[in-house]
Amino acid sequence: MLNPPEHQVAGHDARLGGLGPLADGSGRFFKPLQSCSRGDNELSFYTSFSSDPRVPPSVRRRFFPSFHGTQLLPASDSSGPKPHLVLQDLTSQFTRPSIIDFKIGSRTWPPSSPSDYIDKCFKKDRETTSLTLGFRVSGLQIHESGDAYYKPSRDEIRSYGHDDVRRIVRRFVSDSGLASAVYGGSDGILAQLLELKSWFEDQTIYHFYSASVMVMYDKEGVENGRSGPAVKLVDFAHVVEGDGVIDHNFLGGLCSLIKFVSEVLTDPDGEGEGRRMKAKKGGTENGK
Amino acid sequence: MLNPPEHQVAGHDARLGGLGPLADGSGRFFKPLQSCSRGDNELSFYTSFSSDPRVPPSVRRRFFPSFHGTQLLPASDSSGPKPHLVLQDLTSQFTRPSIIDFKIGSRTWPPSSPSDYIDKCFKKDRETTSLTLGFRVSGLQIHESGDAYYKPSRDEIRSYGHDDVRRIVRRFVSDSGLASAVYGGSDGILAQLLELKSWFEDQTIYHFYSASVMVMYDKEGVENGRSGPAVKLVDFAHVVEGDGVIDHNFLGGLCSLIKFVSEVLTDPDGEGEGRRMKAKKGGTENGK
Repeated sequence: MLNPPEHQVAGHDARLGGLGPLADGSGRFFKPLQSCSRGDNELSFYTSFSSDPRVPPSVRRRFFPSFHGTQLLPASDSSGPKPHLVLQDLTSQFTRPSIIDFKIGSRTWPPSSPSDYIDKCFKKDRETTSLTLGFRVSGLQIHESGDAYYKPSRDEIRSYGHDDVRRIVRRFVSDSGLASAVYGGSDGILAQLLELKSWFEDQTIYHFYSASVMVMYDKEGVENGRSGPAVKLVDFAHVVEGDGVIDHNFLGGLCSLIKFVSEVLTDPDGEGEGRRMKAKKGGTENGK
Repeated sequence: MLNPPEHQVAGHDARLGGLGPLADGSGRFFKPLQSCSRGDNELSFYTSFSSDPRVPPSVRRRFFPSFHGTQLLPASDSSGPKPHLVLQDLTSQFTRPSIIDFKIGSRTWPPSSPSDYIDKCFKKDRETTSLTLGFRVSGLQIHESGDAYYKPSRDEIRSYGHDDVRRIVRRFVSDSGLASAVYGGSDGILAQLLELKSWFEDQTIYHFYSASVMVMYDKEGVENGRSGPAVKLVDFAHVVEGDGVIDHNFLGGLCSLIKFVSEVLTDPDGEGEGRRMKAKKGGTENGK
């Protein structure tokens, strides 16, 4: 039985009747190959990445969904059978996950893109926080209580400014009261982001344009020690060859995100933030 | 007695009869305030930076020219007296310095720039290596022997591709046979770049668009232990406030440069480079 994934926060959504990913509820995620060259590009990335001897197995295992080839499946939009990437369902280990999807990079387009594609992406990079922060939030859900989630609309997320992003990065862990357990510690999100950063300081194999870093955890899982917070990379339709150069665009954005996360740990009550907002807005409250 | 600086490798050049910097030959460098808002912007950067308590004194001392206010001086283009920034002459401690000026950042324009300025810079970022490498070479001289320097023309430098940049980063230290003494060691250029990087991972005060990292050393000085290699930041006409966000654009480019420098140390004979070029060009030689 394939259904739209329960905890999808960004990307094409099969629940709206369109073409989107499906999940089997027992650990597999099926992503239809996108149109144009994107689908082929994502497939060749997964194929080459999963067997590239230059990628440390620990990096592959820790930060990437596992890849199990492709499969012809009835498409979610009833358009008939379509090839799907067969991937690990990253949220299947969690019961009620809190998730943020950060699209990383001040620039979401590869330098070799056609100029109309550049124009389109560049416009969106400037309208969102991508250009200024080096990343943007592209989806999120924060578990509140029972089966309730805080899950703002796409339009709301698209309008986020710096203070909104800061507020979300904080709220992600403060609603559950688990800031230090989720962001901190030797296996926390900050430690994982720093490990990912080390790899990006060195690797010159791939440039990850328009890819996302998903951070997630399950409140109950963290509290009872059964599942830890996780950091995963997804969305590889615009990955290109690195050609001996590091992915400075991704790395810069990742460092910016790391700074946001670490500020929640160094300033747990958000006092610095309050001061900055006050100074900027002459004393008004809302983080927006 | 003021004269055009002997070892200037980039920027406006007073030797060509235009408006450019002057030096007094005993440690001071006089930079005319640039037109439009650039001059004012650079002056306010130096003024605020030199007294900002958030800047660690070690960072200021190690990586920035010292600033001694402004002074009205006869301009180099004989246009009459003009205000000049009074700065430390960074090369005055060297007899025959080898210097590379790297303009850092995949993007050389602040997000708030007027659109015609963005277009102009963006075009140049795409025509040079800025977009793809996260930095470009904007000037250089490499001391050869006696009073001879390898000093390519501006047009030649402007046409540099990836392999040219790689070749220059290597040649900078291989002509003198001092690769490990200049790039390596606890006080070498790599160690200094890494120290600078640490600051950029943390500081959210300034964003350094279109600023340069100058790396330099004097062969004789290194050999007799009288002067070490140095890393300095210059050109602050497009610095803007960081507003609580790290300078991911500068940091990404700096990390890319660090990777280029470290490859000279890990692969002293350039064998990996040779292999890459061979693979790419089907066996042809030239690094260009």
